Amino acid sequence: MSSTINLGNLSVSVFGESHGPAVGTVIDGLPSGRELSLDKIYDFMSRRAPKKDGTSTFRNEKDMPEILSGFYKGKTTGEALCAVIRNNDRHSSDYESISSLARPGHADYTGYVRYNRSNDLRGGGHFSGRLTAPLVFAGAVCSQLLEKMGIITAAHIYSIGNEKDTGFDPVNVGRDMLNTVKTRYLPLIDETADERMRAAIDKARENKDSLGGIVECAAVGVPAGIGSPTFDGLENRISQTVFSVPAVKGIEFGIGFEAASLYGSQNNDEFYIDDKCIKTRTNNAGGILGGISNGMPLIFRTAIKPTPSIAKAQNTVDFIKNENAVIEIKGRHDPCIVPRAVPCIEAALNIALMSYFC
Amino acid sequence: MSSTINLGNLSVSVFGESHGPAVGTVIDGLPSGRELSLDKIYDFMSRRAPKKDGTSTFRNEKDMPEILSGFYKGKTTGEALCAVIRNNDRHSSDYESISSLARPGHADYTGYVRYNRSNDLRGGGHFSGRLTAPLVFAGAVCSQLLEKMGIITAAHIYSIGNEKDTGFDPVNVGRDMLNTVKTRYLPLIDETADERMRAAIDKARENKDSLGGIVECAAVGVPAGIGSPTFDGLENRISQTVFSVPAVKGIEFGIGFEAASLYGSQNNDEFYIDDKCIKTRTNNAGGILGGISNGMPLIFRTAIKPTPSIAKAQNTVDFIKNENAVIEIKGRHDPCIVPRAVPCIEAALNIALMSYFC
Amino acid sequence: MSSTINLGNLSVSVFGESHGPAVGTVIDGLPSGRELSLDKIYDFMSRRAPKKDGTSTFRNEKDMPEILSGFYKGKTTGEALCAVIRNNDRHSSDYESISSLARPGHADYTGYVRYNRSNDLRGGGHFSGRLTAPLVFAGAVCSQLLEKMGIITAAHIYSIGNEKDTGFDPVNVGRDMLNTVKTRYLPLIDETADERMRAAIDKARENKDSLGGIVECAAVGVPAGIGSPTFDGLENRISQTVFSVPAVKGIEFGIGFEAASLYGSQNNDEFYIDDKCIKTRTNNAGGILGGISNGMPLIFRTAIKPTPSIAKAQNTVDFIKNENAVIEIKGRHDPCIVPRAVPCIEAALNIALMSYFC
Amino acid sequence: MSSTINLGNLSVSVFGESHGPAVGTVIDGLPSGRELSLDKIYDFMSRRAPKKDGTSTFRNEKDMPEILSGFYKGKTTGEALCAVIRNNDRHSSDYESISSLARPGHADYTGYVRYNRSNDLRGGGHFSGRLTAPLVFAGAVCSQLLEKMGIITAAHIYSIGNEKDTGFDPVNVGRDMLNTVKTRYLPLIDETADERMRAAIDKARENKDSLGGIVECAAVGVPAGIGSPTFDGLENRISQTVFSVPAVKGIEFGIGFEAASLYGSQNNDEFYIDDKCIKTRTNNAGGILGGISNGMPLIFRTAIKPTPSIAKAQNTVDFIKNENAVIEIKGRHDPCIVPRAVPCIEAALNIALMSYFC
Repeated sequence: MSSTINLGNLSVSVFGESHGPAVGTVIDGLPSGRELSLDKIYDFMSRRAPKKDGTSTFRNEKDMPEILSGFYKGKTTGEALCAVIRNNDRHSSDYESISSLARPGHADYTGYVRYNRSNDLRGGGHFSGRLTAPLVFAGAVCSQLLEKMGIITAAHIYSIGNEKDTGFDPVNVGRDMLNTVKTRYLPLIDETADERMRAAIDKARENKDSLGGIVECAAVGVPAGIGSPTFDGLENRISQTVFSVPAVKGIEFGIGFEAASLYGSQNNDEFYIDDKCIKTRTNNAGGILGGISNGMPLIFRTAIKPTPSIAKAQNTVDFIKNENAVIEIKGRHDPCIVPRAVPCIEAALNIALMSYFC
Repeated sequence: MSSTINLGNLSVSVFGESHGPAVGTVIDGLPSGRELSLDKIYDFMSRRAPKKDGTSTFRNEKDMPEILSGFYKGKTTGEALCAVIRNNDRHSSDYESISSLARPGHADYTGYVRYNRSNDLRGGGHFSGRLTAPLVFAGAVCSQLLEKMGIITAAHIYSIGNEKDTGFDPVNVGRDMLNTVKTRYLPLIDETADERMRAAIDKARENKDSLGGIVECAAVGVPAGIGSPTFDGLENRISQTVFSVPAVKGIEFGIGFEAASLYGSQNNDEFYIDDKCIKTRTNNAGGILGGISNGMPLIFRTAIKPTPSIAKAQNTVDFIKNENAVIEIKGRHDPCIVPRAVPCIEAALNIALMSYFC
Repeated sequence: MSSTINLGNLSVSVFGESHGPAVGTVIDGLPSGRELSLDKIYDFMSRRAPKKDGTSTFRNEKDMPEILSGFYKGKTTGEALCAVIRNNDRHSSDYESISSLARPGHADYTGYVRYNRSNDLRGGGHFSGRLTAPLVFAGAVCSQLLEKMGIITAAHIYSIGNEKDTGFDPVNVGRDMLNTVKTRYLPLIDETADERMRAAIDKARENKDSLGGIVECAAVGVPAGIGSPTFDGLENRISQTVFSVPAVKGIEFGIGFEAASLYGSQNNDEFYIDDKCIKTRTNNAGGILGGISNGMPLIFRTAIKPTPSIAKAQNTVDFIKNENAVIEIKGRHDPCIVPRAVPCIEAALNIALMSYFC
Repeated sequence: MSSTINLGNLSVSVFGESHGPAVGTVIDGLPSGRELSLDKIYDFMSRRAPKKDGTSTFRNEKDMPEILSGFYKGKTTGEALCAVIRNNDRHSSDYESISSLARPGHADYTGYVRYNRSNDLRGGGHFSGRLTAPLVFAGAVCSQLLEKMGIITAAHIYSIGNEKDTGFDPVNVGRDMLNTVKTRYLPLIDETADERMRAAIDKARENKDSLGGIVECAAVGVPAGIGSPTFDGLENRISQTVFSVPAVKGIEFGIGFEAASLYGSQNNDEFYIDDKCIKTRTNNAGGILGGISNGMPLIFRTAIKPTPSIAKAQNTVDFIKNENAVIEIKGRHDPCIVPRAVPCIEAALNIALMSYFC
């Protein structure tokens, strides 16, 4: 199986293809009797929707899910919760002509081999970013359950191309900051970065090109003692879940790769007692020691590669004819998916965190 | 459960505590009738053993495993293969005095909370690097099975502190290079880095400090089409397995975080036909598109934090008395675990890759 | 999780509640490129539909599923296949008045405790026999894939109350018999049992009562060597799957409980060579030795308890008021669900068998 | 994988072969800080040991396990608990001469096909009843943890051949009865059955034959609300676990197959209030409704086939030469394994029940 993740007692499936009838999710193992606000779910999902001003794709997505099961009188029933999102806006013709040309950076060729010619190639099929809609739905559900336990998560655009936002304060990031950043048009801590990033994206678009970036994610309120060593720790579950978001090519916790060039005395976070609570003065560990939360903010960053669909002509192959070719990708493509990746990464975190409480 | 990983039809458990009777592994789901050379397993495991010249710890480990099941007349039986490695060299007294002081960067405190005071704290217990011995055993077994399918994996020290090795050539790295790098005392591509790295480690030791680094790993011979999108892709399984190695704080595939600052036209790997084979001219994707191998070398890097055990005095807390304290860690500690992490990361990769063939 | 089963590389979820918007299934891990006939799926599902002549319930079910994913141009894509079946014929009012009275033999009370008051009690909610519709869909899909590998499965009514059919010939049952029995109005080997069974059901209905029975299931064409000892054998997977069908209270393989009163010399199936094939003269083992198929027909029987919903007045409790009560169940109920259980058990077998080929 | 069972957060592996160095188990997911009495574990395991008077095999087993991990200062650590039991008493020569003759009723042939000639055939290898020793160890551990939660389980010999014991009183069976039956030489409720059963076994032995039987198992103190509908209910988990015990060919819960011939009004258990508790007047359901416990005693029975190893000459095949043959099984074999199966079935129940509390 590839579309189902088992995290302890929580199982999440996402299904669907970009140009099939619908995408959706089954979330199995949720606690019963927990209130869910559909408005909040829609708000969360709308953060993934494309921006109208062109910081994102022009497609008009109507991603309102229909809940088919597991939800009754405003509460979870404890049974599998299935939600389905119809694909209303299909333009297969944009894609059909290129179906045997491997778009560089896409999974056309690898999917073709993996599924022995039989996968649905239209619009990327199951590989499409469209599949993040049900993932975000599942994350939005988990988000509300976590919030009732005092756990708040949020992500922001850490960088787009060479334009950088301020990072979360790894020691003092608070609920207010996390709640605020979600409301911003571009989820940024330093609002002055907004203009710089838009300009960088505009420039990429004008050049028929695209840009990558980094998404940073934080969780506050995770009590110490959540997780496990070895195979089932926070890093294991979070990374396993986060890599379900297409275009993610790396993940680092705390200061991550920077730790590699430090001395132990620089990297170690010293403990101290703060009003009877055990805290650390720094948080290079990103709140995780031995796979287990230490009560400090949980922090990680993920690398998002540039949108592989670009308008520029590219060399490639026809994987059916097995010959060299040139491809010019038509259709409407997002020159930078980083803003839309933000709620996806946050959703993946929510799923991974919630699994420890199911 | 925390010590068991389920990857498709392959399940691997590692068990044991640093100062308990033994550590070990159960590998369940291997194909039957595959020859295994015990000598090759021991060779692999000896790469994890500490170096006598002080690039690593002074502990004299005798890590020869005893195979209890699943192996008969030189071949796998197809049943669960259990191997046990005795803990012969226990010096609990080195650790016992510090058992209620949280060593910064260690899981003493988080394990204490997670297991409600009941975990075996001696020598790090289950959190100890000692647990990588059975992991490496499992990886060594998988390595031989992969090799028979034409898949070779290897890792090397990409950096220690600020000293860097050359990276693998992501397009042209071959079996010879992978086989060669394993035989080197310090697993390096550029042998001139050996002296620089030793000097950096020596300096850290003299300063009662430690150093981190980066391990790079490659696999060649992975056919196109291995893996899956969404939750069960190569990145998902590899990262889930790799984060079982203590001290790993980040992972990136292909050019990883560097992709975040590139344009799509720079990051996309163009396809071409090379003697009837589909290849890419660059390999920024690290051989993975949509969670599925594309036939190019599989490349990733992991960040290894500096050894948290340092001889310098550090501020910390006594987590039983709940008061501030100062800790001076005694005993013999490795100022840089990066060389020993190399076969561990390689082992994790082997397990993750082999899971697709079980 | 409760609604998702993981069998090796195959995962099947069923979701939905009796009076919610829909029920459905996600089947993840199917091989790609396998043709599926929707007509055959509908035929299979129609065997589960209620009989118009009153051997079953009067509800008019329209159980035609909509496939949302994993199926393209007549073939499986290899991605998760989701099918949804709308609940069109809801009569909640029949049930709502009894919602705090525990119907004897039903899960009203246990579900109430398990889900802490929050499950959807209408029409049995997730406990309803309605949930077997998506299970049968999944089994119908697997059935076609198995058939292409030469494996045919079928079930029949072994008994209803004290009226018995002939059992499958455990040694010589062939494809023709299996294919024939499925086409019969009541799936019986001995067609003379039809009248006797209808009479028994009629009598139960007239008495405001219900009847149980036994369903026998067979598979031919399963090659020797499928399965595993210990936890993952044919008996383990089949029983785990079969007990998902409500009302099943027992399962026995081969001669099952009869073996308990036999001598070893009577029970052992002697092997012999039949035209170069290894066969057994008897098949008391039901085709399974050590959890693994031996190439003989696979045979098992399941006990189906009488429909718990009966029109007779019954003593019970109000589990909210915590007081004794009397219940008279209204609405249209099936006096004998055994005929409709037949394709459900067959479906469960198909899922369990198919899992070894995913 | 075949030797690892995942039940929610609990994972249990059993490994080993009859004539290999050792058998053992890894139990992963236990709660931390729970006291375990080794004496009680040994007492439990000794119930599985062969009887000296010949009601069982003459082999002198020394099944004292060595705990390698997960247990410290008398308590569970919360990490994987591994126990190893050495195989001290191997008589391969008894078996080696018959290694290419399929013993009727054994898995020699199916294992040979399944593992492509490579499994360890000596003494049944992984298929041997020897593998129940680690299973019983795991069950004995779970038994103590359940007992602290007020849950007591026990099994008894319900029948051997045609000789029957009294069954558990499904409504009123209490802790005293369960604790008492375990202490009896043959675990029987009606002690007068002892002599009859021994006589039946003696007769079978004299005839170079063997006998099967039925084991009945009960649990009291299971609170209402444990379990789940569909795939993860009590029947699913218990049957999946119980079928790991070799020779089990059937399982029925409550009155099981008898329910098939009853009317609903006979089979339904009426609820009533007994001193503010909800109970049922009968317990035909065996304490389970919709896969979930209802607070009444949990009752099930399993069919144990006669020992397949009998001294009588039997027709069979040589599965390497592919020709007919006659086999006379030498060595010391147990004419009736039912007494020794009793603690095995009980152990399987304990594992399945404990999984809901991990």
